[in-house]
Amino acid sequence: MAFQTMEWIGATATLRLLDQRFLPEVVQYRDLATPEAVAGAIRDMTVRGAPAIGVSAAFGIAQAALLAEAAGRPLIPALEAADGVLRASRPTAVNLFWALDRMAGLWRAGAGAAQLLAEAQVMEREDIAVNEAIAAHALAILPQEVTFFHHCNTGALAAVGVGTALGIIRRAHEAGRKVFAYLDETRPRLQGAKLSSFELMEYGVPHAIVVDGASAHIMRRRRVDMAVVGCDRVAANGDTANKIGTYNLALAAQDNGVPFYVACPSSTIDLATPDGDGIEIEEREADEVLRIGGQRVAPEGAPAFNPAFDVTPNRLIAGLITEFGIVRPPFDVNLRALLAGRDGRVVSCGK
Amino acid sequence: MAFQTMEWIGATATLRLLDQRFLPEVVQYRDLATPEAVAGAIRDMTVRGAPAIGVSAAFGIAQAALLAEAAGRPLIPALEAADGVLRASRPTAVNLFWALDRMAGLWRAGAGAAQLLAEAQVMEREDIAVNEAIAAHALAILPQEVTFFHHCNTGALAAVGVGTALGIIRRAHEAGRKVFAYLDETRPRLQGAKLSSFELMEYGVPHAIVVDGASAHIMRRRRVDMAVVGCDRVAANGDTANKIGTYNLALAAQDNGVPFYVACPSSTIDLATPDGDGIEIEEREADEVLRIGGQRVAPEGAPAFNPAFDVTPNRLIAGLITEFGIVRPPFDVNLRALLAGRDGRVVSCGK
Repeated sequence: MAFQTMEWIGATATLRLLDQRFLPEVVQYRDLATPEAVAGAIRDMTVRGAPAIGVSAAFGIAQAALLAEAAGRPLIPALEAADGVLRASRPTAVNLFWALDRMAGLWRAGAGAAQLLAEAQVMEREDIAVNEAIAAHALAILPQEVTFFHHCNTGALAAVGVGTALGIIRRAHEAGRKVFAYLDETRPRLQGAKLSSFELMEYGVPHAIVVDGASAHIMRRRRVDMAVVGCDRVAANGDTANKIGTYNLALAAQDNGVPFYVACPSSTIDLATPDGDGIEIEEREADEVLRIGGQRVAPEGAPAFNPAFDVTPNRLIAGLITEFGIVRPPFDVNLRALLAGRDGRVVSCGK
Repeated sequence: MAFQTMEWIGATATLRLLDQRFLPEVVQYRDLATPEAVAGAIRDMTVRGAPAIGVSAAFGIAQAALLAEAAGRPLIPALEAADGVLRASRPTAVNLFWALDRMAGLWRAGAGAAQLLAEAQVMEREDIAVNEAIAAHALAILPQEVTFFHHCNTGALAAVGVGTALGIIRRAHEAGRKVFAYLDETRPRLQGAKLSSFELMEYGVPHAIVVDGASAHIMRRRRVDMAVVGCDRVAANGDTANKIGTYNLALAAQDNGVPFYVACPSSTIDLATPDGDGIEIEEREADEVLRIGGQRVAPEGAPAFNPAFDVTPNRLIAGLITEFGIVRPPFDVNLRALLAGRDGRVVSCGK
């Protein structure tokens, strides 16, 4: 593998992140020494993808504790400050809050720096297992020859392990299935063209980058067996927040009889949010739309509106592929049952 | 108006086209002296938009006759050659073939250069009247305050007059309606961001550029009264070929109860094609997807697939706004009736 998305450098207590803003042209890393720097890297999208954001935030909390202990400062105020700054970095992906809540449960109960770092490292290893379990459950329902449609980037660059939706595509290829993938380029930040294609070229998976508006046409005129995406937050009723353009892709799939699946680590399920209308959608700066690689693509002074996520209604989703298995409708009942069972299971049970 | 899309320069028998490949940064013109040069300008998208392509091709035919007459060469072989090269320039927009057929009807019946030039100039003036009639019919069904969703460019840059769908938006604004327009940026060539925003800034129409994947989300969370697009070819059953991404926009509109209209000069209706599956869809070079403004947006060697148009099924269309009025479903019956009546009407009757 030519890259590593994240790495904890114990000797210096720094989080090393692959700077995804410069891919695929440049593979360079940033070493982040403080929770504020980690929060900044989440906000500026040095690191992105719900699972990767969650684990990065956990390391940011561990870092806050290590720094406070080293300086002889009290832990709780340092952890509260770090928790606040990390929580404010991005609003939509729930893994961020899930990870911070999990860490907060420990430090509020008196855990010290060593225990917090160990927990972040457990989360890192868990993510690898969760990724593999999701891929294994998906493979069980895939035909020998399978053409996917995929949105954004949900691979190794978005997670600690192989990723979620793109992890399925990669593992299917490696298992000897005859795989082809259409990759939405995913404007405005082009994660499909820049990151998912970069990954699939690395793994040797045949694919084609397409503009986001081409999905319905391609599904109408060519064979597509499955659309599969990741998610940033799944509400209690199965409504799914994910990268802008996902809802449009789900409509294209529905209109053409292509099953639409969401690869969904259970950490992205948010039972506290009843449905998708309650999910806050981050709006990012207009320049992401108006400039591509620093170059303007619109007249000087032109206005743009740039919501970063959308919500796919549950009725468009054939299944949520979690590490525990594939959740089918009715999602409101089945997601509650899944999470009620989670505490009694080993997270890597799907593998 | 700061630009003129096309102009026939009689003194030199040249067609002057605004070179749309360099907008909005540079407003520059190309003077084309031969039908081969006009065909090249259609193919390389110096000029684009179904109505503008049709009229450009008509001038290319007139030019062939003028050149042959001046050189003392026989007309018919020159016209046959010009017809062939123009017909091969782009496959999807039917206006091209409609205009060439109309010119061929004359020259096969013995018309000379002067008559062919006069006919091209009639088509130029007709397009202006057709544009105005389409806008007038649309205004009759628009509320006082109206928010549009629009795809690609269908304005003065795509036609001789105000254009089709964007002409409606412009005329509504000028008629004192409170107008706002969301403009799909329209990848891969970004006609929405580059051309439609350029026009609406010129006319002072409030708008926002959005990525193509944002339409369903915006219709879900904000007020949108009408989606309106142009078309390159309408089959006998109302299935509509238009710029790639139109079908996805129509699905977004349907799922959110937003009426989806096609602004449709009767010259784009093709009764010889029974339905959309019979429409040839142009596939353009991968580099349109992989490079933006000359700059790569994907890894070196990454593959792309680039269909330039899609077909919106008739069931997603609320109405076709023609110069003769708004055609409602069932389109198969009503389009035939419309065209059967056309020959008995004055083309500018809607104004």
